[in-house]
Amino acid sequence: MLNICLIGAGRIGVVHAHAIVTQQQATLHSVVDFLPKVAQQLAHQYKAKNLTLDEAFNDDTIDAYVIASSTSTHSDLIEGCAQVNKPVFCEKPIDLDINRAKACAKIVKASGIICMIGFNRRFDPHIASLKNKIDDNLIGSIQSLLINSRDPEPPSLDYIASSGGLFYDMMIHDFDMACWLLNEKPSSVYVAASAVDKGIASCGDVDIASVILTTQSGAIATIINGRQAAFGYDQRIEVFGENGMLQVQNVLEDNVILSNAQGISRAKAKFFFMQRYAKAFHNELIHFITSIQLGVKPSISIEDGLLAMQIAEASMVSLQSGKVVNL
Amino acid sequence: MLNICLIGAGRIGVVHAHAIVTQQQATLHSVVDFLPKVAQQLAHQYKAKNLTLDEAFNDDTIDAYVIASSTSTHSDLIEGCAQVNKPVFCEKPIDLDINRAKACAKIVKASGIICMIGFNRRFDPHIASLKNKIDDNLIGSIQSLLINSRDPEPPSLDYIASSGGLFYDMMIHDFDMACWLLNEKPSSVYVAASAVDKGIASCGDVDIASVILTTQSGAIATIINGRQAAFGYDQRIEVFGENGMLQVQNVLEDNVILSNAQGISRAKAKFFFMQRYAKAFHNELIHFITSIQLGVKPSISIEDGLLAMQIAEASMVSLQSGKVVNL
Amino acid sequence: MLNICLIGAGRIGVVHAHAIVTQQQATLHSVVDFLPKVAQQLAHQYKAKNLTLDEAFNDDTIDAYVIASSTSTHSDLIEGCAQVNKPVFCEKPIDLDINRAKACAKIVKASGIICMIGFNRRFDPHIASLKNKIDDNLIGSIQSLLINSRDPEPPSLDYIASSGGLFYDMMIHDFDMACWLLNEKPSSVYVAASAVDKGIASCGDVDIASVILTTQSGAIATIINGRQAAFGYDQRIEVFGENGMLQVQNVLEDNVILSNAQGISRAKAKFFFMQRYAKAFHNELIHFITSIQLGVKPSISIEDGLLAMQIAEASMVSLQSGKVVNL
Amino acid sequence: MLNICLIGAGRIGVVHAHAIVTQQQATLHSVVDFLPKVAQQLAHQYKAKNLTLDEAFNDDTIDAYVIASSTSTHSDLIEGCAQVNKPVFCEKPIDLDINRAKACAKIVKASGIICMIGFNRRFDPHIASLKNKIDDNLIGSIQSLLINSRDPEPPSLDYIASSGGLFYDMMIHDFDMACWLLNEKPSSVYVAASAVDKGIASCGDVDIASVILTTQSGAIATIINGRQAAFGYDQRIEVFGENGMLQVQNVLEDNVILSNAQGISRAKAKFFFMQRYAKAFHNELIHFITSIQLGVKPSISIEDGLLAMQIAEASMVSLQSGKVVNL
Repeated sequence: MLNICLIGAGRIGVVHAHAIVTQQQATLHSVVDFLPKVAQQLAHQYKAKNLTLDEAFNDDTIDAYVIASSTSTHSDLIEGCAQVNKPVFCEKPIDLDINRAKACAKIVKASGIICMIGFNRRFDPHIASLKNKIDDNLIGSIQSLLINSRDPEPPSLDYIASSGGLFYDMMIHDFDMACWLLNEKPSSVYVAASAVDKGIASCGDVDIASVILTTQSGAIATIINGRQAAFGYDQRIEVFGENGMLQVQNVLEDNVILSNAQGISRAKAKFFFMQRYAKAFHNELIHFITSIQLGVKPSISIEDGLLAMQIAEASMVSLQSGKVVNL
Repeated sequence: MLNICLIGAGRIGVVHAHAIVTQQQATLHSVVDFLPKVAQQLAHQYKAKNLTLDEAFNDDTIDAYVIASSTSTHSDLIEGCAQVNKPVFCEKPIDLDINRAKACAKIVKASGIICMIGFNRRFDPHIASLKNKIDDNLIGSIQSLLINSRDPEPPSLDYIASSGGLFYDMMIHDFDMACWLLNEKPSSVYVAASAVDKGIASCGDVDIASVILTTQSGAIATIINGRQAAFGYDQRIEVFGENGMLQVQNVLEDNVILSNAQGISRAKAKFFFMQRYAKAFHNELIHFITSIQLGVKPSISIEDGLLAMQIAEASMVSLQSGKVVNL
Repeated sequence: MLNICLIGAGRIGVVHAHAIVTQQQATLHSVVDFLPKVAQQLAHQYKAKNLTLDEAFNDDTIDAYVIASSTSTHSDLIEGCAQVNKPVFCEKPIDLDINRAKACAKIVKASGIICMIGFNRRFDPHIASLKNKIDDNLIGSIQSLLINSRDPEPPSLDYIASSGGLFYDMMIHDFDMACWLLNEKPSSVYVAASAVDKGIASCGDVDIASVILTTQSGAIATIINGRQAAFGYDQRIEVFGENGMLQVQNVLEDNVILSNAQGISRAKAKFFFMQRYAKAFHNELIHFITSIQLGVKPSISIEDGLLAMQIAEASMVSLQSGKVVNL
Repeated sequence: MLNICLIGAGRIGVVHAHAIVTQQQATLHSVVDFLPKVAQQLAHQYKAKNLTLDEAFNDDTIDAYVIASSTSTHSDLIEGCAQVNKPVFCEKPIDLDINRAKACAKIVKASGIICMIGFNRRFDPHIASLKNKIDDNLIGSIQSLLINSRDPEPPSLDYIASSGGLFYDMMIHDFDMACWLLNEKPSSVYVAASAVDKGIASCGDVDIASVILTTQSGAIATIINGRQAAFGYDQRIEVFGENGMLQVQNVLEDNVILSNAQGISRAKAKFFFMQRYAKAFHNELIHFITSIQLGVKPSISIEDGLLAMQIAEASMVSLQSGKVVNL
């Protein structure tokens, strides 16, 4: 039985807690949150302990940590896990400062601990099925990749201000997916972007962006991001190969079709990541737990987290210079 | 070069005329219509002659006739073609009186002429593709057939009154398709029907009907008809076999998708038979012309027209008695 | 906190147990199974008690029962709940003998207990969404209903032999849905059916059936059932009204599209009811629990269970006589 | 009656001839081709004259010219029409040399003749419907545009060698569409491209390319082209606006769906431009004829042809330099 300590009992923390308790081989051992009431409530619901951070890092019965607290705490907490030499799952990104992230990754590497970064989309059943079909060589060698990713509505300006910007906060998922699907690192980045929303513009951020990544093999990846989409959470992937094309379409709220005098209509796309990627959040935790139990490395490492940040960093240089940036 | 005489220059006649002139091996020789102006105009546009019916049946240079006049004239005109011993294409149905149709079929048989009845749907590219896939054994032996056929809006009550009723006027197409797709005649018919529209009820007709045909082999065909559909001309077929299912979906006005705050929407189905079956009308004439030139029998005979009428007749008995009728 | 006792710890029992524990206001109090090991294991996993049936009916701390045992035990167990005057959720059907079911319903009625029958499809998110759109009058008055329901593969002949036959075992779901969606009881039933599978034929059962139900209002319902479908669990509904049509399509295994030299292809339909109706099983238990806590009647009663059985009974008469049966 | 002279009786010439003869207000007056037999055959079929080029430019009874000859003849022939001061429709591109095209456009402008360039896609019913919906403000202000355009199979190397390259030969259609749909000229171009096919590489051309166009308003257009697609002619457009998204999907060979043990499959996309854009070719000629008859300018001018070439020219600079090019 794997005793897991959850650090951060917010929206995503609750999702992780639920995934843990559904596993026969794991237990939600304890919950840590800087808001005691929040931690207590979640701990009580699942008959877990409510610990302080100090207690959590000094409790020998804990086997692994799941970090779902705010981004600014990630690298410190990961290093804490490295110090007590225990496996850790941490939400993306590692940090908003790439040098801080690099330092953290160095410590993780030195410690030898498992450190899985939560790029949940790799565990979405639809995206995972697409990846399997690529790996099964259904479309031959990949020539191009296209990712459309748009949020249903922009976050608050407070969120934007502390988010690290579109590339660190949002497109980082797509950078990870691009490297993973292409099985190759990009060699150059070009960004075209605008700020449609005045508030976002006033934060110095952009809200629509099209990015082209080129690779050594000649494959070309195009990523289109936006902070707003009238029809829900736009999450589409298209991989084109010599023998065919694979696509993940949007997942709709339901599959009812209404045909009337206005035409043939269906529901919108599922609203946002909590709905669209519910199974992905679940499956990534199961993967983390199972990897520890089997004694194998999870399929995502801290280096993957670092690579996505490096592409985000280069994207910001391209945006500011208006030029292509080599990686 | 095949000289074709068109009898009936109305809406469908114009469509047939156009199909004829696009064929390098055929010519629109002449046009006959009881309204001289209508015949003249069409004849002039395509540099054809304008003949009276008598002239048409006495012109030795005519090789074949295409009948697109009103239903009440069909059997007389077909018999006229039999008398001059020339191939004829005639719109469905042969007649509204089954005994008159039987007599006509007898004369056609005795004469040995080609007489193709215009069950155009067999020539629709989508439906023809489905039929080919059945014949290629893609779904194995057929277990059930389902046809949904609904007009976009009811015809005038004048039309209804002289139409022969839902089964003779509308479902006759589906009876032909059922026999053709199943490659088997039905052994029993059961009808459930209602008159939703009060005007249609006052004509003694029904406007929605569900019919079950059983066959000797055990296959079951269900045909659903209606005189009105808010979303356009509803024309769907579904054939279920031991190894899979084949479906023809509705053909929409265009393939544009609009995704907005209300959902994901597409255009309505093409409005009615002139739009939906434009290619079918074209292709059936090409088939008629090509068959004559190749000296082979067209794939539809007057006996097919008679069979569909016999099922329509049995359907009316079932409707009136509320009982299953054996064929 | 609602203490629930689960009777029957098989495949469906496990699903119900999981639904109960995810609810903050309910507890899985105890598990009963005639196989002690099965009951113990499930009880242990969710920290519940393992009781005998006698203990279960004599435990004052139990607030409600969930029956997921075999059909032959249903009516006895429901009557047991009536005797201790506690709410009960029971899987469909009430019984295979309609007279036994009627007697049971009488006792339930006399006791005044809540007795919800598990017609889970009403709680499927897609079907529930369709029903809401009907109730919101999106398609106006209903003219016809079409249900296609096919299992992916036939059950064992042992299962068939004790199933009560296609109408009691399988189409009963569709009879319930038809009455619920049309908001009306049928006035006549006509059945056309065959036995494609020789094994099933040897059991005296059929494996494909098309049924037409007529109603007083003139609406016509067509139900098509089959015990086998090459492409997975075929579960489609189509409701046609004066202002439009509503459809529930099949739910596919994933939404990946592969386009290659063979065409454009997608995954099969989800395999069977455990996959397709996972959320429906969950939601029906939540509805049962919530209804009890709110002190309101669940939306399905034992009378609904009885009505579906009466239509199944009439269907068997129609099948044997080859005639339309009035209800 | 408009007398039209067709110059060029090859594959596209035949399509244009057919469109002309279906129009009641126009006549195919004459056919010119440097291969006399080809011209004679087409002229005979439609009862037109067979003229030499000199005769064609000296025949006072000709009202307008349609140029469907090879690209290298376009600018000379357009200038010939300017000299005789008659309207001309010419296939794209004006020329492979941008300076030659500019000179030709100058002469056209000075003459004041109508000169419509054949960007047929604007007349495709699906694309035209999308454009209408943009103009009807269904999605509000446009934020981004995405065009996927892939041929089913690469042309011969001979064709490639004289084609002017991917940007002049193929993406020029998409450059025109981008300007037309965005209603704005691009301000910068960035190209990422590769040569997957060794033969094409040996011609110094590329066969896959992703291009980003930015505009003054902040809208971003992405164009993805390829010379090969296993699943047919890939022709998709997606326009994203503040209030929604409009898409044109691929048009498939038929709308039959096969569901079997392998999944749910449909036909490939229509093979190539002759199939996919048959109606577009027809409609553009109708537009040209109608415009002349109404005395209005066609919706496409020679300046539109020039603009698309200028973007193609800038794209080649970006490709060679690896840099963003301002327009």
